[in-house]
Amino acid sequence: MEVPPPQVLTLPMVVPSKTLMGPGPSNCPPSVLQSLSLPVLGHLHPECTKIMDDIKAGIQYVFQTKNELTLAVSASGHAGMEAVLCNLIEPGDRVLIAVNGIWGERANIMATRYGATVHRLEAALGTNFSLTEFEDAIRQHKPVLLFVVQGESSTGIYQPLEGLGLICHKYNCLLVVDTVASLGGVPFYADRWGVDAVYTGSQKVLGAPPGITPISFSPKAKERIFTRKTPIKVYYWDMTILGDYWACFGRPRVYHHTISATLLYGLREGLSLVAKEGMENVINRHRMCMERLHKGIRALGLEFLVNKESARLPTVTAIKVPDNIDWMVVTGYAMKHYFLEISGGLGPTANKIFRIGIMGYNATNDNIDFVLKVLEEGINHAKEISNSKL
Amino acid sequence: MEVPPPQVLTLPMVVPSKTLMGPGPSNCPPSVLQSLSLPVLGHLHPECTKIMDDIKAGIQYVFQTKNELTLAVSASGHAGMEAVLCNLIEPGDRVLIAVNGIWGERANIMATRYGATVHRLEAALGTNFSLTEFEDAIRQHKPVLLFVVQGESSTGIYQPLEGLGLICHKYNCLLVVDTVASLGGVPFYADRWGVDAVYTGSQKVLGAPPGITPISFSPKAKERIFTRKTPIKVYYWDMTILGDYWACFGRPRVYHHTISATLLYGLREGLSLVAKEGMENVINRHRMCMERLHKGIRALGLEFLVNKESARLPTVTAIKVPDNIDWMVVTGYAMKHYFLEISGGLGPTANKIFRIGIMGYNATNDNIDFVLKVLEEGINHAKEISNSKL
Repeated sequence: MEVPPPQVLTLPMVVPSKTLMGPGPSNCPPSVLQSLSLPVLGHLHPECTKIMDDIKAGIQYVFQTKNELTLAVSASGHAGMEAVLCNLIEPGDRVLIAVNGIWGERANIMATRYGATVHRLEAALGTNFSLTEFEDAIRQHKPVLLFVVQGESSTGIYQPLEGLGLICHKYNCLLVVDTVASLGGVPFYADRWGVDAVYTGSQKVLGAPPGITPISFSPKAKERIFTRKTPIKVYYWDMTILGDYWACFGRPRVYHHTISATLLYGLREGLSLVAKEGMENVINRHRMCMERLHKGIRALGLEFLVNKESARLPTVTAIKVPDNIDWMVVTGYAMKHYFLEISGGLGPTANKIFRIGIMGYNATNDNIDFVLKVLEEGINHAKEISNSKL
Repeated sequence: MEVPPPQVLTLPMVVPSKTLMGPGPSNCPPSVLQSLSLPVLGHLHPECTKIMDDIKAGIQYVFQTKNELTLAVSASGHAGMEAVLCNLIEPGDRVLIAVNGIWGERANIMATRYGATVHRLEAALGTNFSLTEFEDAIRQHKPVLLFVVQGESSTGIYQPLEGLGLICHKYNCLLVVDTVASLGGVPFYADRWGVDAVYTGSQKVLGAPPGITPISFSPKAKERIFTRKTPIKVYYWDMTILGDYWACFGRPRVYHHTISATLLYGLREGLSLVAKEGMENVINRHRMCMERLHKGIRALGLEFLVNKESARLPTVTAIKVPDNIDWMVVTGYAMKHYFLEISGGLGPTANKIFRIGIMGYNATNDNIDFVLKVLEEGINHAKEISNSKL
């Protein structure tokens, strides 16, 4: 053999137990971690497809939808965005993308690659959009779809959605919502609100590992997919075939790809815990944790990136980095001394903010008190370093 | 809530321990299953990126390559095929696809969707291609790439590759090889054989769960990716960005997507076991198991789908279903009485063959004897049923 076996692979893996209070992934509950060690099943074994059915019911519950075309794609949350866009966009389509952080930017890139003419509706950093702004832009650009992020994790901004579906449908426009960082932290009603396509992250409030992504399409979106004039570029995310593997169209299942039984176990267990607690209770728990955190933030004399209180996302809080300190000293301090993850900014907020995540298993009073204590220590530590340099 | 929590999610999951002797997934070794329960790490934590580095070294070893652009995509083996094709194909490109089973067919569909003009080189079911056939077709069609499956799991056929790289490169054609079902069961030397792009399955000989797919591109393939005239359609598999996340270009890592730490653990552990045993020994073990299995098959008076002995794949053996019996009775018997998976055909071989997989952890003499015993019992059982209907 010309390439010898790498010595590094003879050494054990080092995986410390951390408290993940960034914008995700969050810690999995113990029963989720345990489920991941269950033996792998074949992708068409009845026990496996039963778990897929359970998961579909669980996803319909957390999205509050009766959509037939509801499943989990075998890829990360990012792929949820791409799967929705590549199924709903045909070359030459006009689409409207609400951009107030990194996820709108990314949707813009993807939609462009799939041949769309993209119109951007932009909001200043740390602000959200009004229904009037949406309606004006839709009336002007006549898009086939509007893409909106409910919880922009790069800025901690929350986008209210009530009433938006009605506006979209008035103009024959599909409403696509990214709930990766928001679902379970704020209310979401796909059917009541007229959402046509939605996806979320497994590794946030749902408490499963990353790598499998819940997704759902309304009957109207499904019709659009089935009446396309051009083939869906990506076979892996082609809902006309993948939907059959997930038994979404009342036809026999067909092999599409080898699904990861391991990730199904984790997602099924995560959804099960949420169903047992009840979505209202999960959402309330996140809201209470947010209030406790925000009270503590104010007590520390820190400022929020998002001014308007009602526009703050419970699952991700963006806090301005105080003047004259290095944010990396603070996050490094938390990781080094406590194995606690507090994150910095991302994209347009890089270097400007801390981001603290409250998601799923980690949404407890104890964790909030812990992160506040460490944040205070870390900032004091950073101030000392900063002062010593003067 | 309009959609109540599903009652099914209050019940426990049922995941029996089976012996998976189909064409994959195979059983994970116990240490791999254990590793999956390790706590999830963030996608840019140093412990996580260290594991990614270890995995990259392990993939270079199993592919026998020094390719810089070597990583694992966060999706199933099917996505390895699509990731390779969408990076290397531009609209209007001529490509040549060797079709002698379902995987060539699928590559044909994908390449067409990415805008290629596809030329098919076809072989009869259960046969492979000669170097002369390849060269004639390449000379005729002048493709930018040739797609070949080393181990066609739908037919159990093995495609020798030595000398093919030289031929391809003579005509300025890239050589793309699918080793999903073959790697670790037969020798493979990416660099020595001049392979330009290759991917494999995690859930076969490597013994990891499905959902994460090793992939590697030669310097020549990398150059083609970086000098494309059109953007890569799929952002999720865009190697110019994903390669930076995997530190393939000597630049700082950048966030691309939230990788599944869970699947990294499993793949790292699977690669570690292979590296410790040594690829030559792994390959020999599979060959010895195949010989034991094939001897048993002959003793049972059964026939192979693949006539030529040297063209039989060690990892997947295709056996003709004897006349007048129902193959599903046999596979059903094995599953019902022994939780043993023996598979039927797929695509063009549906209803015509049994497929027995020998992969990774399951490649042991005991398992071979077990599967032979159950196959004999199952066939006798099917004959009784068949006779009772006469």
